[in-house]
Order: sequence, then C-alpha cells, then structure tokens
Amino acid sequence: MTNPPAETQGFVFNQTMMRIKDPAASLDFYQQVLGMTLYQRVDFADMSFSLYFMGYPSNHEGEALPGDAAERSRFTFQQSALLELTHNWGTEDDAAFEGYHDGNAEPRGFGHIGITVPDVDAACQRFEQLGVEFVKRPNDGSMKGLAFIKDPDGYWIEILNADSITDLIGEHGALSH
Amino acid sequence: MTNPPAETQGFVFNQTMMRIKDPAASLDFYQQVLGMTLYQRVDFADMSFSLYFMGYPSNHEGEALPGDAAERSRFTFQQSALLELTHNWGTEDDAAFEGYHDGNAEPRGFGHIGITVPDVDAACQRFEQLGVEFVKRPNDGSMKGLAFIKDPDGYWIEILNADSITDLIGEHGALSH
Repeated sequence: MTNPPAETQGFVFNQTMMRIKDPAASLDFYQQVLGMTLYQRVDFADMSFSLYFMGYPSNHEGEALPGDAAERSRFTFQQSALLELTHNWGTEDDAAFEGYHDGNAEPRGFGHIGITVPDVDAACQRFEQLGVEFVKRPNDGSMKGLAFIKDPDGYWIEILNADSITDLIGEHGALSH
Repeated sequence: MTNPPAETQGFVFNQTMMRIKDPAASLDFYQQVLGMTLYQRVDFADMSFSLYFMGYPSNHEGEALPGDAAERSRFTFQQSALLELTHNWGTEDDAAFEGYHDGNAEPRGFGHIGITVPDVDAACQRFEQLGVEFVKRPNDGSMKGLAFIKDPDGYWIEILNADSITDLIGEHGALSH
C-alpha cells in the first residue's frame, strides 16, 4: 500500500453520475427494488434538468437526514458512494428518444455499478418477483453466485456477495494485494 | 424519506466499473493524483484481463488492509464506494486501439464520478501542477468553485466541495428533499 499524498487528505468518492430517461421509473427502481434512499433532488428549471442523489445512509441504520435543505445538501455531498441520476426533462415522454448508452456495447467505456448483498440468491429471487431484467442470473455461466441486473435505462448492476465472489475469484483468477 | 424494503437490509453500493487502456497510467493517476488506495488487484490470465479495486479506506485514517489475499478480498467487496478499473490486456501498447468512450459525447449515458474535497481551489492548483487535463476549471463558466478533470482514459471526474456546491445550487437550482 502506497501512502496517499497528504494533499489528498479528506477526499471522498462521493458520486457516480448516469443519465436517466424517466425519474418515476428510476426512483421506483433504486428505492423500492434496491432499497436506496433519496438524499436530495435538485431542479434546474432554467436548464430543464433535475438531479437525484441516491445512496445507502450508514448501511440502513436509520441515520436521520437533515431537514433543512441547505444542511441536507452539505450532508449529501460529504457522503461516500452516492448515485447521481440526471434527468434531462422531456425524455420520459419523447417517442423519438432512443435511450441512453450503457457502455457495454460499442463504443465501450463505463461498465456497471455493483451492489454487495448478504445473499445473492435471495436478492435475485426477489428481483425476479419484482420483474427486474437480468443480464446474468446467479447460476448462468461459469461464474456462479454472481448476477447482473439492468436498471430502467439498461445500465448494468452487478449483484455480489463478498464471500462468494472471493471464492469465485479464487477459482477463476489470481488475487494479489 | 421512504422506508427501504427490509429485504434490502445490508446492501452496500460497492463499486463503479470503468474500462481503462493502461493500468500504469491509471494507477498512477488514482493513487498519486487523487490519493486512492489499491485495495486489490485480480488477474484473469485465461481471459487476459485484470481488475483494480481502488478507494479511500475510512477517509485516509490509515485503516490496515488485511494481509491475507482472501481476507483482503472479503474486506474489499464489503467496502462502499470503490472504483473498479478493468484492463483488457494489450490495449496499453496497441496502436490501433481507439480508446474508451467517456459517455459525454454521443451516444451519451454514463457521465462522471465525483470527488468531494476540502478545498476545490487548492486541489485544482495541485492538479494543474501535476499536469492533469481539465474539462472545466473552478472559475470557468457560471458554476464557480466546481471543476471537472479527466482521468487518463478521458473519463470525467467532478471536483466539488460540500459547502460551495450547496451555495452554487442555491444560486442556480432549487433544492428539495
């Protein structure tokens, strides 16, 4: 482990931003299917877009979010691991909108986000019941116990477990520090 | 705030995966410029790719990473906010490789990752000295105090501060809960 430069003290990996077509579909998915909390919504009316910052507050331990909007904003931008969903107004009912690019077909780039869960099979059975689309079910292919689902825009979300992915990597790959 | 479904208890937003051309350049950038720690490298020799999991352990407070590779792996996949850099072997010296797509030109999708810093101007002066490429400097445009830099593959990284972005949003947007 190299020592991080002192000038980077206090840096926090706060957000991953992805564009979404329809906030109603995405909020339902990230809140109800994946259990995230909406930290803050920001509307930019002059520029016709909105941002939705979603995440897991202290791993669901019920941390209270500040009630005051500015306090809530300062709180939000100090958290680690938020998802920033950007909605450019109008795409949700624009028949000509072709959708966003998930990064896994050409031209490639961004790949996926990943959610660690206590039990991949139980989580995926529930996703199945909720009608979630799968890229790979836990038993598909050679990488057992690992799944990929799609969010409403088609972005890939890996569903993994820290123990079982460690076993999988031991079988298929070589771990190093 | 809606209550998250009980079945999502224990879910952790663990990773954001992006493909990289050259791990030497990317490791140098994420470790030396942004101060991240390499949690784990995983090599898949049969499939000719490697994964690099990078992040900020407990906000730089010097948390020791487990020495045993399997323990390190379990530890890694339980953290929140890791960056997973995927290197498909050979791109780093393939003259025909056209690079990865950053998601901000057509076809759009993924936008950026964001790093919260204690002082945007100080961080950006240092990035400037280190030769980092900027998309937007803190004083460019109307959104003062907010910057975007590029990583070695051209992915955008927002550099923000929780206080100043709250002021900015107050000027340009409408905060809600």
